[in-house]
Amino acid sequence: MEKIMIINSGSSSLKFKLFNNETHETLASGIIERIGIHGSKIKVKYGAGQKYELDHEITNHLQGIELLLNVLKELNLIADLSEIKGIGHRVVAGGEYFSQPVIVDNDVIAKIKELAQLAPLHNPANLNGIKAFRKYLPNSLSVAVFDTAFHQTLPQENYMYSTPYEWYEKYGVRRYGAHGISHEYVARKAAELMGRPFEELKLITCHLGAGASITAIKYGRSFDTSMGFTPLSGIQMATRAGDVDISLANYIMKKLDIQSMSDMVYLLNEKSGFLGVSGVSADMRDVEDAAATGNERAKLAIKLFYNSILRYVGQYIAEMGGVDGIVFTGGIGENSPETSEAIMKRLAYMGVTINETENKKRGAQTIISGPDSTVTVMRIPTDEEYMIAQHVWRLLEN
Amino acid sequence: MEKIMIINSGSSSLKFKLFNNETHETLASGIIERIGIHGSKIKVKYGAGQKYELDHEITNHLQGIELLLNVLKELNLIADLSEIKGIGHRVVAGGEYFSQPVIVDNDVIAKIKELAQLAPLHNPANLNGIKAFRKYLPNSLSVAVFDTAFHQTLPQENYMYSTPYEWYEKYGVRRYGAHGISHEYVARKAAELMGRPFEELKLITCHLGAGASITAIKYGRSFDTSMGFTPLSGIQMATRAGDVDISLANYIMKKLDIQSMSDMVYLLNEKSGFLGVSGVSADMRDVEDAAATGNERAKLAIKLFYNSILRYVGQYIAEMGGVDGIVFTGGIGENSPETSEAIMKRLAYMGVTINETENKKRGAQTIISGPDSTVTVMRIPTDEEYMIAQHVWRLLEN
Repeated sequence: MEKIMIINSGSSSLKFKLFNNETHETLASGIIERIGIHGSKIKVKYGAGQKYELDHEITNHLQGIELLLNVLKELNLIADLSEIKGIGHRVVAGGEYFSQPVIVDNDVIAKIKELAQLAPLHNPANLNGIKAFRKYLPNSLSVAVFDTAFHQTLPQENYMYSTPYEWYEKYGVRRYGAHGISHEYVARKAAELMGRPFEELKLITCHLGAGASITAIKYGRSFDTSMGFTPLSGIQMATRAGDVDISLANYIMKKLDIQSMSDMVYLLNEKSGFLGVSGVSADMRDVEDAAATGNERAKLAIKLFYNSILRYVGQYIAEMGGVDGIVFTGGIGENSPETSEAIMKRLAYMGVTINETENKKRGAQTIISGPDSTVTVMRIPTDEEYMIAQHVWRLLEN
Repeated sequence: MEKIMIINSGSSSLKFKLFNNETHETLASGIIERIGIHGSKIKVKYGAGQKYELDHEITNHLQGIELLLNVLKELNLIADLSEIKGIGHRVVAGGEYFSQPVIVDNDVIAKIKELAQLAPLHNPANLNGIKAFRKYLPNSLSVAVFDTAFHQTLPQENYMYSTPYEWYEKYGVRRYGAHGISHEYVARKAAELMGRPFEELKLITCHLGAGASITAIKYGRSFDTSMGFTPLSGIQMATRAGDVDISLANYIMKKLDIQSMSDMVYLLNEKSGFLGVSGVSADMRDVEDAAATGNERAKLAIKLFYNSILRYVGQYIAEMGGVDGIVFTGGIGENSPETSEAIMKRLAYMGVTINETENKKRGAQTIISGPDSTVTVMRIPTDEEYMIAQHVWRLLEN
């Protein structure tokens, strides 16, 4: 049976999904955890709810992938490596080089490496996965699918900053965005759900997870997105501040005697957002629990989160000249009726109404606005692996 | 004849306006230029278009103000210093201390000094003016009117950043905004022009000058504003970048080998905006001329400027849940029909229409949207000195 594998390789973990090439069904999924850290393990889910776990010290991606492939053989999920016709790799930063998924060759590898300066944590980890699979499965089609590629259609006035033009020309300073794979997936699903052509719709997709971004999709193309040069900016996230006045960095560096801008950016990436405002947790569920018991900072963190979403939704309505559909996805977007309700209520002025029953359904793919709503608001679980798989299938056919 | 003087004291200049205390007419206005710089002079306009200039080396504010007061006597604009009953000083940063204009005493002076850390260029200069006038006119009522005070009504979710809460508690990191005197002035004028109570309106005021900011005014109170902790953020300005992803600072510092964050902030304050993008000029008129001859970077700078305005207008419509009136003011707002037209066209989706004739009237106070427009769009020349004067008159009466 022919198969493809989808890989999301992080610095100390590697997620995978195995698909049947004919039926497009998921055969297995899982993760290699704590690569290079004591206590590493492989977890696999397959069949009808079956689970497998292997505790084994894993020092690097290469070793982890060798082990994983053996596990998949043991579990009879693959009979022979030659069954795996294609591998799709999620790559975070594609810069201006990649506006489409590409078949990986040496030139592509060199470019992903070069773009590590835009995503120093992610691209090298993605490359580790790509290289390891090329070693073990040299005859499979290797496809890189970039999280920034979908946003390469942004018009110039939406991707440029008002900084010295040379910074763009010489150093590539511009808005790249992120979560493109997820935004594209849910936007296409939204068009299906609305029963209208993707190319005729003005959509706003809210991918709300630990990382979070909002995208305006106009007539089938990404038109603007809240993440910028890096995934730090935009709306409030689990530990990331989102948009701030850059002058405050200078001020805080003096107050806290921080010498390096990298250390300052670390605080904005890792100690801000839900965690920094609430002081409780980076996880919105914990913050909601604290808010329910009267914790004022937790309440504030939630208000700031809602407000940061509303700001971008408002911006994108004006930029696109209206909106037909709004989508909530990602861990919070799929599972927090409170969040979608808060945003819909704030949009009542433009005729958005709520379907209370549907809005309460966590994790469901459903229309959560009322039948009389001027805008169709939807909850759509994202599936980045399936979106990547679709690109691999398309390229395998060529 | 009783008079009041309004003072806007900068680091190397001091602007003034002299008002008749009874009729509220302007008697004279002018500037002390190049204080502490070779080539300093005093310029005064008075009467029916009369002009006076004095070239004289001026080494500090104290000396400049003494000279100015003598000039005003020579020109018979004041007979005796005791005629000046009140002096209104524009002060840039009032922090969280000042949500209203205040009568200056030693405590106020100490606080303005303390707040210099939020406005290192402006507050010390403002204080120089205050101290000099207290010396020469010890019996006049001295009033400080803060450019941030109007924005002290912002709700918490609009003024807080998603940064560590301690940064707010200990160091006052939050959105303060600016141009409050101008935003309040034109917003009140807008209510008059619309013939509706200020307290019932949702307004968006666009103060577009070399420095520029946009404010949402809901039911008579500042609700949100585009400038943040400092006047660097928000929309694109003459030389300021406005909103950027803070990570790009870290990246550019490495690329350009910039050691200090202050130097980086300097580039974003002084070498960005219209100047940095166009490479032509910080003055929009020059950039428009270059764009007309086909300069692509000049065209881009104008597109980015329009877009940055539209983004905030869209945000504020969503935040306030609609908008009744939009105001253009400031050097560009009062004199660039192209800018107001561009924004109105982009808002056509929500029923905004243009009155082409009125929109072309530069510097006029007029309604520039069409009679059928769902939102009243206005051009209103700002008058910060008159707004400050009103506060002085009010406090003189108490």
